[in-house]
Amino acid sequence: MKKIGNRTVQFDRPPSIISSAGVVGPKESEGPLSREFDRVFSDSMIGQDSWEKAESYLQKRAVELALVKARLNPKDINCVFAGDLLNQCIASSFGVREMNIPFVGMYGACSTMALSLINASVYTECIDKTINIAVTSSHFCSAERQYRYPLEYGGVRPPTSQWTVTGSGAAIIGYDEKSPKIKAFTIGKMVDLGVTDANNMGAAMAPAAADTIKSFLEDTNTKFSDYDAIFTGDLGFVGTELLYKILSSDGIMISGNHKDCGLMIFDREKQDVHSGGSGCGCSASVLCSHILKRMRRGELNNILFCATGALLSPTSTQQGESIPSIAHLVNIQNLLP
Amino acid sequence: MKKIGNRTVQFDRPPSIISSAGVVGPKESEGPLSREFDRVFSDSMIGQDSWEKAESYLQKRAVELALVKARLNPKDINCVFAGDLLNQCIASSFGVREMNIPFVGMYGACSTMALSLINASVYTECIDKTINIAVTSSHFCSAERQYRYPLEYGGVRPPTSQWTVTGSGAAIIGYDEKSPKIKAFTIGKMVDLGVTDANNMGAAMAPAAADTIKSFLEDTNTKFSDYDAIFTGDLGFVGTELLYKILSSDGIMISGNHKDCGLMIFDREKQDVHSGGSGCGCSASVLCSHILKRMRRGELNNILFCATGALLSPTSTQQGESIPSIAHLVNIQNLLP
Repeated sequence: MKKIGNRTVQFDRPPSIISSAGVVGPKESEGPLSREFDRVFSDSMIGQDSWEKAESYLQKRAVELALVKARLNPKDINCVFAGDLLNQCIASSFGVREMNIPFVGMYGACSTMALSLINASVYTECIDKTINIAVTSSHFCSAERQYRYPLEYGGVRPPTSQWTVTGSGAAIIGYDEKSPKIKAFTIGKMVDLGVTDANNMGAAMAPAAADTIKSFLEDTNTKFSDYDAIFTGDLGFVGTELLYKILSSDGIMISGNHKDCGLMIFDREKQDVHSGGSGCGCSASVLCSHILKRMRRGELNNILFCATGALLSPTSTQQGESIPSIAHLVNIQNLLP
Repeated sequence: MKKIGNRTVQFDRPPSIISSAGVVGPKESEGPLSREFDRVFSDSMIGQDSWEKAESYLQKRAVELALVKARLNPKDINCVFAGDLLNQCIASSFGVREMNIPFVGMYGACSTMALSLINASVYTECIDKTINIAVTSSHFCSAERQYRYPLEYGGVRPPTSQWTVTGSGAAIIGYDEKSPKIKAFTIGKMVDLGVTDANNMGAAMAPAAADTIKSFLEDTNTKFSDYDAIFTGDLGFVGTELLYKILSSDGIMISGNHKDCGLMIFDREKQDVHSGGSGCGCSASVLCSHILKRMRRGELNNILFCATGALLSPTSTQQGESIPSIAHLVNIQNLLP
């Protein structure tokens, strides 16, 4: 690997996403990407006896499906890089506990899929071309009761709020000729412009997304229009508007090729999700199903995946703190062998 | 880097711990390692208006002191790898927020210092010899009220319980000739033998420590007595006893060179800490002050640092789950240039 520019790192032998899988819950299965997911569950308990266990099960299924597609077993895997939104990341630890794979826990709030993907790729290039996995998840019910109110309370959600996606995405990183490859990445810095409203995380995260995208474009001396698509996750409607404002005031043209995973997964008109989807499982499930399928079909050949996270907790919000946000970016390309 | 044996990875150009700093609170400053720490605070609020903010401040101070020792500025740093025990790892995000360094959040419960050290070292070797930081923290008061009871309640602690250390340790990883070097590491697998008592984490974690140490010794074809010292963190008294039982039943001789950070930091006779110290800040502060000072003085030249973590949450405990545990190991050596 080598550093280019200030913050971007380019792989010498870009690792491949040799397989991936996205699994989601009932509401996501009724959205626009319904047919793209590898598995949809019609009940948010997924046969488990708590929402937390259901979320762990989503991670387990995502990893299992990705392994089956790659014709691999857990014993072929060097490390799993996993994270989620639950306190102490229990969706990850309990989700992959039985697989007996060395485990690296990651935390980047909703940006965790990009962070895990980056680190799994670093290990794959640097450690004897090993095979590593990145996986993250979220669950509307487990997140809602942990971050906001008991579900039974039926708290009213303000229009700027986002709907936590019930879903998980897993990607297996190794080497093969035909799969999309991780070409470069930019690790995010925390950006905190003083937003304190935990119901408006899109606004808190947009400046972080802008900062990371801008750094990457400068470091690589490329522009927005050089990419087939630039996916952020999960700014939602409010955050996306703000991202456009910030980028255009910095003189960066957004040329119709930007999409936000939080806006892709739900139909905002019909599904009552206010500003859009969010959560570790949102960008993960959209990337690991829809986006990577489009890359494999050759509809997209060079994309940026920039997942955003709000590094707050209910305690920091109660203590009046603002929301430090972060965005990690991955450049994925179909490279000729 | 190359993989040796099943799970151990050896660096080609072992990165150096070019500086480190350990900072602690009042109780730790009264323990046996009192004079070893870089900074001790006589009040657990450390001039902040909440324990959570005090913990963030500990991380900030540890990083700042390590930077000063290395004569570096935040802008010289490629990435900071940070973690803690608080929900959503807020001690880390708020602790290093203002430094404007690319941020990688890690979670491994009390094993996080070893995990962060490993990943900072991987980046240093693989990305153009960049300089990276590993830092973790814990705070008795913020942990106690989050994991157990409000402090004011004065809940009685069972004899197997451990005392969360108020402290932080930071290590700067780069290249220099004279500093101790990270030679190899083993990432832990989750081990869960069904312990469900969240007041007996030593017992839950000991099998994970045994598993990782055994794997490392097998992979490197070395034995316990080949090392000047083997430090675990933080098994405490109960977990250490159990570790010895498991290792000796596996035919591994423990030759008086084992120490547990949880037993080193407090005087169990005088300080009423039951089974010993614990927390992300325990092994971090002991490593980054006492242990690395002994290495720099040449009193120790080849050690293993094996930090252990219990991957539970109050929610998983309330739902009747057992405790998946993990231990990550780092081999640190004084190598001749």
